[in-house]
Formats: sequence, C-alpha cells, structure tokens
Amino acid sequence: MEFDSTRISNMDRRYRAHLINSLSGFRSANLIGSKSLNGEENLAVFNSVCHIGAHPPLMGFILRPLTVSRNTYDNIIESGFFTINHIHQSFIKEAHHTSAKYPESVSEFEKSGLNSHYEEGFYAPYVKESSIRIGLKFEESVLIRANDTRMIVGKVQNIHISDELLNDDGWLDLSKAGTVAISNLDTYYKAELIDRLAYARPDEKVESLLKK
Amino acid sequence: MEFDSTRISNMDRRYRAHLINSLSGFRSANLIGSKSLNGEENLAVFNSVCHIGAHPPLMGFILRPLTVSRNTYDNIIESGFFTINHIHQSFIKEAHHTSAKYPESVSEFEKSGLNSHYEEGFYAPYVKESSIRIGLKFEESVLIRANDTRMIVGKVQNIHISDELLNDDGWLDLSKAGTVAISNLDTYYKAELIDRLAYARPDEKVESLLKK
Repeated sequence: MEFDSTRISNMDRRYRAHLINSLSGFRSANLIGSKSLNGEENLAVFNSVCHIGAHPPLMGFILRPLTVSRNTYDNIIESGFFTINHIHQSFIKEAHHTSAKYPESVSEFEKSGLNSHYEEGFYAPYVKESSIRIGLKFEESVLIRANDTRMIVGKVQNIHISDELLNDDGWLDLSKAGTVAISNLDTYYKAELIDRLAYARPDEKVESLLKK
Repeated sequence: MEFDSTRISNMDRRYRAHLINSLSGFRSANLIGSKSLNGEENLAVFNSVCHIGAHPPLMGFILRPLTVSRNTYDNIIESGFFTINHIHQSFIKEAHHTSAKYPESVSEFEKSGLNSHYEEGFYAPYVKESSIRIGLKFEESVLIRANDTRMIVGKVQNIHISDELLNDDGWLDLSKAGTVAISNLDTYYKAELIDRLAYARPDEKVESLLKK
C-alpha cells in the first residue's frame, strides 16, 4: 500500500492519526508525575519519553501544543520537578485511565487507583506501583516550530529500581520488570528478549552477547 | 536500589551509559537511509525515532553532538531527504551492523547485506527488506542546549507498507510486521500484544477494544 502527501492530507482525521502514530515503531510507556505549588498532584500517561544523553543524564518527552490546559507542563514549569515511572503489564488499564480529561483540581492518582509515593527532599510524586522510578529536574523546554510542539528536557536527579532488575554492567532488564511498550496511542505490548548484540565493528560479523 | 546525582556522576562511564540508556523504557528500532549529493548512500540504525505530530505528519530523531563526522546528518542537510525503515526480527544483526564505524565513502548497505530500494521521484534510499518504509523531507533541526544534541524533524512525504499490516482504521499491526523494540543500546525484543484500550473517559472503567 502506498500513500503520498496528497493522500495523507486528504485522509479522514482519525484514520490519519492512527496511521501516522504507528509509523515510528514501538514507543516507551511511562507515567509522568508532577505537583502544582498548591499541592495538587497530577499523573499522566506518555508514550513519548526518550533518552537524550547519559552524561549529563538527560531525558525528554514531547508535549502537544499548549492550546489546551496542560497540567503536567504547568506543574513542571512552576515547581521545577517531575517524575518518570515505568508502566508495567500489571497496571496498564490504570495507567491508560490517566488520559481521561479530569478538571485540574482532580488528582489522577485517586481516579486511576494508582498510589503516589514521596521520597524525602524531592517535590514531585512517584508511582508506588512502578519498579523503575526516576526523579528529574526541569532543564529546558525546546520548541519544535514545525507544529508548535515542545520537547521537555529534564536532568535525572535520582533513580529508584528494584534490585533484581539491575545487571552487573548497569543494564536494566525491562522484560523482567514487566515494562510495556506502546504502539499507536492505545495498544500495549509485552516484550520478549530476542538477543543482546555486541558492539559492531567494520567487516566483522555481529555476535550475540548472550550465552545461548 | 537508589542512585542520587552524586552517585550517578561518579559512576564508571560504561555502567552509567547502560543504566541511563535503560531508563526511558522500550525504544523504536529503525534504519535511517540517506544519500549525499555525490551519490554516496548511508544507512544507520537509530533507537530514537519518535512521533512528533499527525497533521502535519512529522517524525523526529535524536542526533548526538556533531563533534564527530555524522554522515546521516550531512546527507539530510545537503540533500533535504531521508527515509525511516522499520527493523524486523529477521534482520536485527544486519541492522545492528550499520553502527560499525566505516569511512564516509563506504555504503552500509553493501557492508550490512541489506539492499537499497528507490522510488521514482524520491532521492533517498529505502531498505528493501523493511515492510514499513517512510520517505521524509527535512523540516527542522532543533538544538537541545542541555547537551548540544539535535532533534532532526522531517515531514512525511510518502508511506509504503505491506497490505496485510494495515487495519481498517489506519492502525498498523507492528507485531505482525515483526518490528522489534530496543532497550539500552544493544538489546532487541519482539513484542506480543497485551491489549488495545478504548479512549479513557472520566469515572468510567477502561475497556478493551479487542474481541477476546
């Protein structure tokens, strides 16, 4: 099946949203926790969290145009802090529920059935049910002019992970964690390990790092 | 296990790279194809391709600082075009091999064993083996000042997909396609569908869209 620009712009709006949202491949599945200076907690599912750099440790996520109320954005800007929490298979429906449009004063923690968890000295709430939780400090809001979208960049301040997920060389076993992947906007997948591959060198065959 | 900023910055460089690269969750797995104005083809594996918007249809990827030669970047800037091609389970080693450091004049197509494919009227090469192939026009290079990384944004010009992957509502079945996900920098996963969930509404239970 072939689609050119004309066909893409003439598509039914929902059909195009589904198709274009499928194109990038599998996406990360995270809950972003934040709190306003008034103390109102917010929790929202995001499928756009990405790695920006390891040193300094930076992560980002894409925020849609600020034409409607964006609690997550407002809280991050005013408080300076947020958390990223992996979504595991055991609570995908609860996580997905945080995308429902509640008034600003309502906490998605209460409505979704997920629990907030605080660490001493860190302002934003984590998700108790998540076994990979990251606390970040707001670093930069980068405007993507092509569609007035923003990439919000945070610097990792702290990491909380269940001991059994951490391998000797720092690598986390996301499959063991039950962390899910998303495709499109609404489809959740579990991941099954195929292989871990060695650093690729010119004119050498790529080898597996796993004992088979 | 708990890590604070001090512990993170004092980590062994490789350990930190593995850990921080694991934090965002599962990542997309794509090959980016490009061609210099001299006609030299380039193919490179990327785990940072992301969705930016559906209308206009925009996709982006993160490029590390331009302190070393970046063929993909140079080709995109000078020619104005590139392709994004899904990596499927059947060719993960070939795809991973494109990360080997070859001189600029060498085509990773030849070295990896993957084949280039051209469509009439489009400058950049696609990957023949991929069943989800997208042609893009360079739109914007967005600087992330926090670490001098760039988000390269392209506008979708055309989409080529195997018919059996396209559902009635525009949604692509990435699991059927054998599209893989990546965690960390080197670990490849296949995805197994858990559920597709309905649009979430306040105070309503989230329902599955799949017939069970």
